[in-house]
This record gives sequence, structure tokens and C-alpha cells, in this order.
Amino acid sequence: MNVTWLDLADNTPFGLDNLPYGVFSVAGAPERRIGVPVGDQVLDLTAAAAEAAAAFAPLLTDGVLNPLLAAGPGTWREVRESVREWLTEPRYADQLRPHLVPLTEVTTHLAFEVADYVDFYSSEHHALNASKIFRPDAAELPPNWKHLPIGYHGRAGTVVTSGTPVVRPYGQRKPRNVDVPEFGPTQRLDIEAEVGFVVGVPSVTGTPVSTADFEAHVFGVCLVNDWSARDLQAWEYQPLGPFLAKSFATSVSPWVVPLDALQHARVEGPAQDPEPFEYLRTSEKWGLDLAIEVRLNGHLVSSPPFASHYWTAPQQLAHMTVNGASLRTGDLYASGTVSGPERHQRGSFLELSWGGREPFELPDGQSRAFLEDGDEVVISATAPGPGGTRIGFGEVRGTVVPS
Amino acid sequence: MNVTWLDLADNTPFGLDNLPYGVFSVAGAPERRIGVPVGDQVLDLTAAAAEAAAAFAPLLTDGVLNPLLAAGPGTWREVRESVREWLTEPRYADQLRPHLVPLTEVTTHLAFEVADYVDFYSSEHHALNASKIFRPDAAELPPNWKHLPIGYHGRAGTVVTSGTPVVRPYGQRKPRNVDVPEFGPTQRLDIEAEVGFVVGVPSVTGTPVSTADFEAHVFGVCLVNDWSARDLQAWEYQPLGPFLAKSFATSVSPWVVPLDALQHARVEGPAQDPEPFEYLRTSEKWGLDLAIEVRLNGHLVSSPPFASHYWTAPQQLAHMTVNGASLRTGDLYASGTVSGPERHQRGSFLELSWGGREPFELPDGQSRAFLEDGDEVVISATAPGPGGTRIGFGEVRGTVVPS
Repeated sequence: MNVTWLDLADNTPFGLDNLPYGVFSVAGAPERRIGVPVGDQVLDLTAAAAEAAAAFAPLLTDGVLNPLLAAGPGTWREVRESVREWLTEPRYADQLRPHLVPLTEVTTHLAFEVADYVDFYSSEHHALNASKIFRPDAAELPPNWKHLPIGYHGRAGTVVTSGTPVVRPYGQRKPRNVDVPEFGPTQRLDIEAEVGFVVGVPSVTGTPVSTADFEAHVFGVCLVNDWSARDLQAWEYQPLGPFLAKSFATSVSPWVVPLDALQHARVEGPAQDPEPFEYLRTSEKWGLDLAIEVRLNGHLVSSPPFASHYWTAPQQLAHMTVNGASLRTGDLYASGTVSGPERHQRGSFLELSWGGREPFELPDGQSRAFLEDGDEVVISATAPGPGGTRIGFGEVRGTVVPS
Repeated sequence: MNVTWLDLADNTPFGLDNLPYGVFSVAGAPERRIGVPVGDQVLDLTAAAAEAAAAFAPLLTDGVLNPLLAAGPGTWREVRESVREWLTEPRYADQLRPHLVPLTEVTTHLAFEVADYVDFYSSEHHALNASKIFRPDAAELPPNWKHLPIGYHGRAGTVVTSGTPVVRPYGQRKPRNVDVPEFGPTQRLDIEAEVGFVVGVPSVTGTPVSTADFEAHVFGVCLVNDWSARDLQAWEYQPLGPFLAKSFATSVSPWVVPLDALQHARVEGPAQDPEPFEYLRTSEKWGLDLAIEVRLNGHLVSSPPFASHYWTAPQQLAHMTVNGASLRTGDLYASGTVSGPERHQRGSFLELSWGGREPFELPDGQSRAFLEDGDEVVISATAPGPGGTRIGFGEVRGTVVPS
């Protein structure tokens, strides 16, 4: 796979079949450039495309991916083929080497300007767990859950890039045993390990986007940590849903993996019963076999599997637009917490500690129910590539700081 | 008040004490300009400021208000004083007359790029009515309602300007008497008459904005029609809140009235019991005595009073950021449906027809429970200005078209 003039390890998560996109700068040169990680380096695509006088070079000069995202699948393919050719053909080596920067020397930034951010709730195991924890007297899926991918809008302005510290939010909470709410820093700060889908091509208001048009609109995939304050959420969420419990921060991974890199990761989604309405049916398989890992202070605490996620990304896209709502370049929609059936596959601390009632042990002897100040959470993922390779998503990292 | 070289009617809603801002173009010249309506004309502020070589002229050349919004209260005051001087002092008349365009000849556009859109739920009468209609077995305010201004994020990308047709949305609904949902165009298309607040100056992530800093961040006020599909909403909204029932369209009025124009409209908000947490307390009165009118096909159907709205705009701002969520220039937050205690003061058809069970009569002999295709809704408002004048908000208009 990795026939290249670069010195690439066979098992690199950033091989020639991956080639995700992000935005970076280097010390002493604050200008933001579009980058493509390959092996343990980043190709400065902005510079490389300019030097090659590529037709698409003007799409790469704004320091964000949005112009490339808006350009559509034809251009996405053209850029990807060019990059692969440059990194493969020895005749480009001398020209490109100056545009390769060690990954350890770059600072990554938010890769795209987020237009609207939507968060779904599409893992059956997560939804069942949440129901059991929050609504023990009605511990089943909500009646609408298997008919539509439940979702809500989050705060686009507080989507931040990996590495951004997360300030423990203040807010109101009402303990069960008292009549009036309290105010203070959240005592139940949590994560949600999710997969994010980045919209490239906008759509027209009043015209739904079909599941079949998924690849015509969606550019690629990143990782999302949808930080959540569970005590704030429990008190505020009725009747209009989560608000401040989520809006303080949502972290995303720096690299957006294009759908083209995920063709070997595609699997049949789970069987859906009842059969969904026609606008939610898909003829192509778009389950994605991502193996996600959640680490707390370096310890692996969960390995959520994405392949069995109930509602797939094309279904979420079709649902989000079936009312005629339009898409914009930079829209981000997230899968919802990814949880598998096993205890070690739960994508939130809420589930791992069963609502805080069963704190879990870390190998260093500490235990956790929810996050403490100073805790660092890293979510990473890989997916199958061709010929036994792995497609790496990098990681989304965040450390909790006191308010 | 209206000492001016212009021929202004005494009772004009766009007098010299109003001077709101918007974006317009004229036939044959598609370029968007910043405009200030005065009397029955619009001052082309982009052109006037350029000709006057005003220091703030560069803020007015992008065809959206955002650069002006971001500039902050000092600049807002400077621009306002300049405009007032230009329209008052006879020596500017010859210079400005070419930059006045009849209101009837302009096309208005979305005045600002919406960053995040938040919708609150802060009218006590509306919330009580909704509770009685949706949850007849638990007809009281939600337990959190008097402790915090309930809100949620809406879809910023489908905020549209007045006059944009609203396509009746498709979606899922589940009638009470059947077990499975249906799919089709909404049968309960509704409006929500609201007041919108436009954020100018951004804030820093992790740092709450206090109620006292309201005027340092919020630029002005517009009218909002938060179109709602009640049947979609009833089926989808548990547990994460409204989503597709709202995201197809939210209409806003073309002119943003600066806070400076509303000093005579300020009133004490209603008494709040229980006393709110300290972060929600205000030392200045920021109830706003807006008289709102809702017209359906030309008939006045409701006159919601905003003065008695329970949670005020500074309180909503402080709540929205108390968790450290940052503000961006162009953030829009809406009051929630404005309803008064009387039947003719209800700001939604849901309330006017009591959940559809009591259709109301129009003077032309027709009746309505919810909106029919072809129906036109116009929401307008005025507020007290100095010396008995009225500050006009113009109107937000929309016609329902079939899907």
C-alpha cells in the first residue's frame, strides 16, 4: 500500500490510504495552513499545492478547510489523487521534502469553521443505559427512538479543537433529597465519545437530502468529545432538552478523514426493526467499523465499537433535512455517545459508573465516577484500511481545569 | 423630537429617536448596503459614511452588520450620533439626499450573519398554557421554570429574513389514537411571536457574562417568528427537545433596533418569586414595553405584551454564559413566545386555538386552528419613545407555501 519515497512504517495510522486533512501552524510562523499527516510528518498542503500551481491551490489559502469542503466530491477526489501521487512518485520527492514538518512540531487548530452543530442519540446501548440510569421507573427506549434518529442542536461557537482545556462549568443542579436547586461547579463532569460527520456541500432550503446523497454532501469524519455536566443536565433538560450541560465545550479531533479513506471500514448497520420510513432507508451500507478507545490519564477505560451504531450517518443526514432544513458548509453532526453492549464498551462515565453509583477502578489505584480537575481524557480511533492497514483518526484530547 | 431637514411625519415609527440598522439592495444594483430607515425612506449608510469619510465607514462595506456589531458600544454610539447629526443639520441635506431611497423600493436582506441561535421559553403565560395543552395531567410550570430561563439551541443556518416563503415541512407525527407514527406534511403549522436579541461583542470562553454587562455585549433587538410544527414537536421532543419541529425556518425582521433607542421602553420586569440565584439578579430594569401585534392574512389575531415577560434579556444572557460558554458576534437569542394573560394576547396559534380544539374566527368568516397553505403571518411591534413618539420595529412577514 505504502509504496512511497517517504520512510513510512507499515503500520502507520497515517498511511497513503488515509490522508486526512487538518489545519496547523508551526512555531515562529503563526499563519495557518492546510495539512495532511502522513507517517510522523505533516505535508503542508497549502505550500505544496501553491508550488505545484495546482488548480485547487486557491481553496487551501484561508487557514480553514471550508473552501475545500464547499468544492464538492469531484475536487475532493482530485486533491486526494494529487496528494497521493506527490507522495508516491519519486520525482516529486525533492520538491515536497521542504513542505514536510514533523508532527511533533505542529500546533493543530480547529480544521473548519463550524456552521451548525447537531448531536444525535443513536446508540441503542447508550440510550438504554441512559434510560435505566435517568428514568429507572421507565427503563426502556423512548417510544420514538426506533422510528427516528433523535437529535438536537448544540452550540457551534464552543466547538473547540483537541487540546483546548475544558473549564469545569458552573450551573444549577437539584439534588434529589432537597427541594430547591443549588448553584456551583458541576460535580458530575462527563465525556461522550462520539463520531462526527463534516458537511461539505450545502443544500437548498425546502429540499430534503436523501440518504443516497450522503457522499455528495458529507466530506469526512472526525472524533468528538461532547463534554457533559450531568447534574446540570438532569435539572435543566425538561422540557426543551440539554442546554448549558453541553454548551460549555465540545472538542473535536484535528484531522478530518475523508469518506474515500473509509471504504474498507463500511459494514452493514444493525438490523432495524421496525422498518424505518422510506426517507430513512438506505441501499448502501454505511455502518462504519471504527474501533474507539477512551483513555483517562493514560489508562484505557473504554473501547466503544461504532459498527453496531443503530442509526447510520446517511440516515441522520436524511432525517436532519427531511423538514426542508438546509445544510451549510461546515455543518457538523455527531453520532451520539457510542456504547457497545459490554461494560468496557461504554462511551461515557455516566454509564461506566452507572450514574455515579458504581465508581470504577483505574490501574493506578484511583477510582472515578466523574471527572476530577486535572483529569485528561483522550479519545482515539482506527478503522480498517486496505490490505490489513489501519486508518487512524488521531485523537481528541482535553484536560479539565477548575473554574 | 424630529427636528430635521427631512419631511418626517410626527408619528412615524422610524423617527430620529429610532434609527435601526438593516441591510438592503435596490433593483438593478444587487450590492448589499447597510441602511437606516427614517420616515418612509432608507438612508444608504454605507454610501453616506464613505462620502463623509467617517472613521467607521470601513465597518459598513461588507453587506452585513457583523463588523459594526463587533465594534462595540463606543462605536455604536458614534455611528448613531453621526447619523442623527446628518439627518438633523440642514448643511448635510444636499449631500445626503442622493443616499435616501424610498422604503418601497428596497429589498431587505438578513441583516447579520447568525452565529448561534438560542431560543428561550420565558413567558410565564405561554409556559403555563403549553403545559395545560401538552401535559393536561401535570398542568403546572416545570419545576425548574422559575429558577432558570429554560432555553435550547436552534438552527442558525435556517434563520431567514422577513418575506422568505416558509415551505410546509414534512416529518413524523404520531396521532394519539394510533400505535405507530405517520409521515407527511405537518398538519399543525404554527408561529411563535418572539423578541430577538442580537449579540455584538464576543466574550471569552470560560468567563460568564454578568447581567450588568448586557449593554456591553448586546447591540439591539429585532422581531422573531419561530415557526413551529406542533405535531412533529409532540412526537420528537422527548427526551432531547425540539429539533425538526423548529429547524425548517425562523424568520427575523429586517431592522435591528439599537438598545439606545429603547431607553424609554424600559420597565421593571415582573416580580420574581423565588428570588433567583445571584448570577440572575439585575440592578437595572430591563423589562421592555413592546406592544406586539400578530396579523393573519391582514386580520389582527393577537396583541402580546412583552413588558410582563418573566425572564429579561440580561438574565437570559447571564444564564446562557454562566457555564463559561462564549458569545460570538452575530449570536441571536430569542425571548420565547410572548403571551399575555388574556386570550387575545397569546403569541401562538397553539394557544389561540387551545391545542387546535377551539379554532378561532377571522373577520372574513374563515376560521383557523393552525396555518393553511397560502396564509400570511405578519408580526410587528412598537415601543414608547421620548415625548410620546413610538419606536417602530417594522415587521417580520412570512407566507406558507405547500411542500
